[in-house]
Amino acid sequence: MKNIDEKKKTSSEWFKVLQNNICSELEVLESNYSDSNCKFKIKQWKRDKNGLDDLGGGEMRVMRGKIFEKAGVNVSTVYGALSDKLVNKIPGSEKGASFWASGISLVIHPKSPKIPAIHMNTRFITTKKSWFGGGIDITPSDKESLESKKIAKFFHKELKKICEEYKKGSYEKYKKWCDDYFFLPHRNESRGLGGIFFDYIDSGSWNQDMKFIETVGNTFINVYKKIVIDTVNLPWNIKDKELQCHRRSRYVEFNLLHDRGTKFGLETDGNIDAIFMSLPPSASW
Amino acid sequence: MKNIDEKKKTSSEWFKVLQNNICSELEVLESNYSDSNCKFKIKQWKRDKNGLDDLGGGEMRVMRGKIFEKAGVNVSTVYGALSDKLVNKIPGSEKGASFWASGISLVIHPKSPKIPAIHMNTRFITTKKSWFGGGIDITPSDKESLESKKIAKFFHKELKKICEEYKKGSYEKYKKWCDDYFFLPHRNESRGLGGIFFDYIDSGSWNQDMKFIETVGNTFINVYKKIVIDTVNLPWNIKDKELQCHRRSRYVEFNLLHDRGTKFGLETDGNIDAIFMSLPPSASW
Repeated sequence: MKNIDEKKKTSSEWFKVLQNNICSELEVLESNYSDSNCKFKIKQWKRDKNGLDDLGGGEMRVMRGKIFEKAGVNVSTVYGALSDKLVNKIPGSEKGASFWASGISLVIHPKSPKIPAIHMNTRFITTKKSWFGGGIDITPSDKESLESKKIAKFFHKELKKICEEYKKGSYEKYKKWCDDYFFLPHRNESRGLGGIFFDYIDSGSWNQDMKFIETVGNTFINVYKKIVIDTVNLPWNIKDKELQCHRRSRYVEFNLLHDRGTKFGLETDGNIDAIFMSLPPSASW
Repeated sequence: MKNIDEKKKTSSEWFKVLQNNICSELEVLESNYSDSNCKFKIKQWKRDKNGLDDLGGGEMRVMRGKIFEKAGVNVSTVYGALSDKLVNKIPGSEKGASFWASGISLVIHPKSPKIPAIHMNTRFITTKKSWFGGGIDITPSDKESLESKKIAKFFHKELKKICEEYKKGSYEKYKKWCDDYFFLPHRNESRGLGGIFFDYIDSGSWNQDMKFIETVGNTFINVYKKIVIDTVNLPWNIKDKELQCHRRSRYVEFNLLHDRGTKFGLETDGNIDAIFMSLPPSASW
């Protein structure tokens, strides 16, 4: 059984490895399917702006390409005292409590309205307790089209596989959690076509939980690569682009009005560019 | 001295008259300075979706034109029981309290990055107390340019005139209130170049307060008309447009993360299209 420091080390190092792998794969797709040689721009940041305290930080990577109009893949490992706003709102916290959180978060907004946008996030958090959380979900521009439904079917099938392998019955639970979470009550509509969402994962076997987190990351790469390859050459027109800009406006609404990650970032004084990396390159209302 | 029903009638009727006047003036500008004959589209809505209760409603008017890429001018008069979320948050409310609120709200996003975006809102609210609130502020795309600073100077001069005529010292107070309110703490930047903002106005002379509210509305028309005429023919390029889309992204962030009007609308079950009418036709992150 690993002690807590080993768990922190293993998880945070994995998030960095995954960031590298994902960025490499996206750069290859970008150069294979366009004449661009766009690469991710890397920017490191520290949470303590004055440089006096060690409060952690992160590495933000953003590519603005021809296939991936805006792709952001961030890792961060932050720690310190929980702000008053968060005390008692997350498990194992109390006044004066400290926290440690490490994770990877990515959002990809492809240029073609035929390629769905995708989001993936996995994290390990410790307070007096410790747990994993994360999720992955897709947002096609046209949620109703047969094409999109076919993609969603494949996407969910792959997710079901890894969830059921991790724990029987977890797919249904995580799928529902995703549907409930990525929902815009003021619009009475879902953000996209779902996926999985999970939090407070602590099964008793840290190694198994960590393995599931790794599998989610690797599955993201394989599944999204296939989706991109299958859709990147589909023709699209101005109407498709308008629908994409409309869909992106809902993405903005969700992230600014509802997303817990955005709130957590703002309330723990995270890097503003990293927090808002998820926002689309364009949106229309 | 008017009784409360007369005050409600006078104020809510004024907001309708002002809506008419503003829309007419904007349509004239639209047709004078472009080859479009775009008009406002009018949509009425009721707050009670089932039509069983009378909870008020409003009239939304939106024009998507060639000069005014998106102009929304809404009036609403809503009433009923305050939701739990709002009880004790606004003056004169308590559990089970009812409210009545009438107002006009407009946001104009011009196509040319050289014409500033503008927002204006005035309202009369009653609970156990009653008061006026409102404000007007401009957001040029390029906050630093000499052109914008010149416009802001003229804008503030006119606002100072009407504030000081209403009440000595009020301009400084309302200007500071505006600067404090239209500020994005997470960006450490102001939304635009300010204006005036005021709330809980109840001087003891309802007629004088009402007259000030009318003057704010009429001043909006005169001042914005002059600003549009002075800037509509200025040339602009793609860089200016990009800056406009950037500025608009901050507008979205402010309205979704901070704006009290948006929160009030969502929490009083207002019309979602009317609440989000303020969001720009396009934005970039």
